[in-house]
Amino acid sequence: MTAKYIIGIDLGGTNLKSALLDFKYKILRKEVFNTQDFIKKERLIQAIVDSIHRILKYKNLNKRQVLGIGLGLPGPIDVKRGLVHFFPNIAGWKEVNLKNILEKRLGLPVSLDNDANLMSLAEFRMGAAKGLRNVVCLTLGTGVGGGIIIEGRLYRGSTYSAGEIGHVPINEEGPQCNCRGIACLETYIGNNRIIAQAKKIFPQKISLEKLSQLAKQKDGKALKIWSDVGGHLGVALVGVVNLLNPDAIVIGGGVANAGKVLFDRVKEIISRQAMPVQARQVKVFKAKLGNDAGLIGAGILVKEGID
Amino acid sequence: MTAKYIIGIDLGGTNLKSALLDFKYKILRKEVFNTQDFIKKERLIQAIVDSIHRILKYKNLNKRQVLGIGLGLPGPIDVKRGLVHFFPNIAGWKEVNLKNILEKRLGLPVSLDNDANLMSLAEFRMGAAKGLRNVVCLTLGTGVGGGIIIEGRLYRGSTYSAGEIGHVPINEEGPQCNCRGIACLETYIGNNRIIAQAKKIFPQKISLEKLSQLAKQKDGKALKIWSDVGGHLGVALVGVVNLLNPDAIVIGGGVANAGKVLFDRVKEIISRQAMPVQARQVKVFKAKLGNDAGLIGAGILVKEGID
Repeated sequence: MTAKYIIGIDLGGTNLKSALLDFKYKILRKEVFNTQDFIKKERLIQAIVDSIHRILKYKNLNKRQVLGIGLGLPGPIDVKRGLVHFFPNIAGWKEVNLKNILEKRLGLPVSLDNDANLMSLAEFRMGAAKGLRNVVCLTLGTGVGGGIIIEGRLYRGSTYSAGEIGHVPINEEGPQCNCRGIACLETYIGNNRIIAQAKKIFPQKISLEKLSQLAKQKDGKALKIWSDVGGHLGVALVGVVNLLNPDAIVIGGGVANAGKVLFDRVKEIISRQAMPVQARQVKVFKAKLGNDAGLIGAGILVKEGID
Repeated sequence: MTAKYIIGIDLGGTNLKSALLDFKYKILRKEVFNTQDFIKKERLIQAIVDSIHRILKYKNLNKRQVLGIGLGLPGPIDVKRGLVHFFPNIAGWKEVNLKNILEKRLGLPVSLDNDANLMSLAEFRMGAAKGLRNVVCLTLGTGVGGGIIIEGRLYRGSTYSAGEIGHVPINEEGPQCNCRGIACLETYIGNNRIIAQAKKIFPQKISLEKLSQLAKQKDGKALKIWSDVGGHLGVALVGVVNLLNPDAIVIGGGVANAGKVLFDRVKEIISRQAMPVQARQVKVFKAKLGNDAGLIGAGILVKEGID
């Protein structure tokens, strides 16, 4: 009996998702949980194990039918060893060899990678950047993550930590970042920062969804907020574009839903301020795979392996 | 008769250098000219051709003994087609197919690349970054150039323009750059900018060599200037390190001679402000090959070819 399925897990600060995928990365079954329901490390691991068992049972699969389990995780990972260094937004994880733990409990091969890397892999193979060669992907959320495709392959860096676009400084002085940097892009356009900005302008607290909706209705104050977000993002991307001369930038995550005003501002800054040869080449795309990108990327990780 | 030699040319805003190299990239003969002596494009091309003929004659070589001619050039190049897009600091060059021109005049294969790329190739194969895998090289001069080695290969980008570290913005607002960017690193630490800063502090005009010498004698004002240069450079490199997670940063060019104060400041900022996993991995080295890096890189370009 040969393997025909992959199980993908996507752990975020908000949601834990697990899914059964076929070899074309089609999602056949999905479960979504609230990450905050499993505060302790042990309970979170148990929730992952339980969900995998449920998925196997649902399709009546035995383990030989599953090629492996791929996990996208919200923090720096030693991909080779399967080690979680830490999670910036989930407490209690420090140098945890999650690959070993899960392989022992499940009897299946387990691969781990950073969630932004897997989103990038998914958009590159199956989404907005399909067929291109050099691509930079961003995911805009509470944190600002990124992944880099170089010459058609995911570039992980010397210690698997490349792609941290959220932590490119856009000023020499500015807000202190959680990462210990100063004026990192994330300190300007992380979700919480956008909400804090909106609070200064709108009388009541306002959600990002509402802010996006207002922008689509041409509300001047909302447009201004998203234009500012695009301005900060654009400056960081000018640096990335001049440095990496990519074919495309792919922008995903909730904030990308602000739509035209955000993308217009980013494109305007790149076309005006990036170097001519680089600016002419690069396209700015919205991510295509939405919330499933991480699960699809986990599937690709298992199928293609870590090189 | 098989080829045993390569001819390397290194064109800069200040000097035009040509050299005969063997296959171990040893320089057997070198000529150095003042670029400003050949103001017109035609005269510059003629000077290159004449120099190559002299070098061939000096060793009594026929063309079959020469594998090819490699040129390092101070501007964006279409490496595949052998096309010079333009030179920021030498007038009169616009979309010039220098490869075709020289191949017709010389009857030898010609390869072109950006000078910073060739310096990076040289430092990676023969210099400070030998044996490493992911490396970012900088050359600090009138302009601030750079080159990126990814997984052991020179990364040129989608249109051969990657590596422009001098044009990473380090602030959202700041000086207008020649490249049309705003607050590019180069606008803070290009040679002319450093000299302009020094002019405000020292009573008379002062050269960079003198500034470096004064710093070595612990002159407080000179130390402050170099520390400021290191500060600007450090912030740009924090972004590069977080983005690319390299094994090493190699810094060359005249400004690198400022020595310890500059390197100390850069290292301090990276170790304090870059993300922990990336900061632990990256080493900061001074370039080893000095003024010959471009010629050696031109030799490597010819020998290894463009992939």
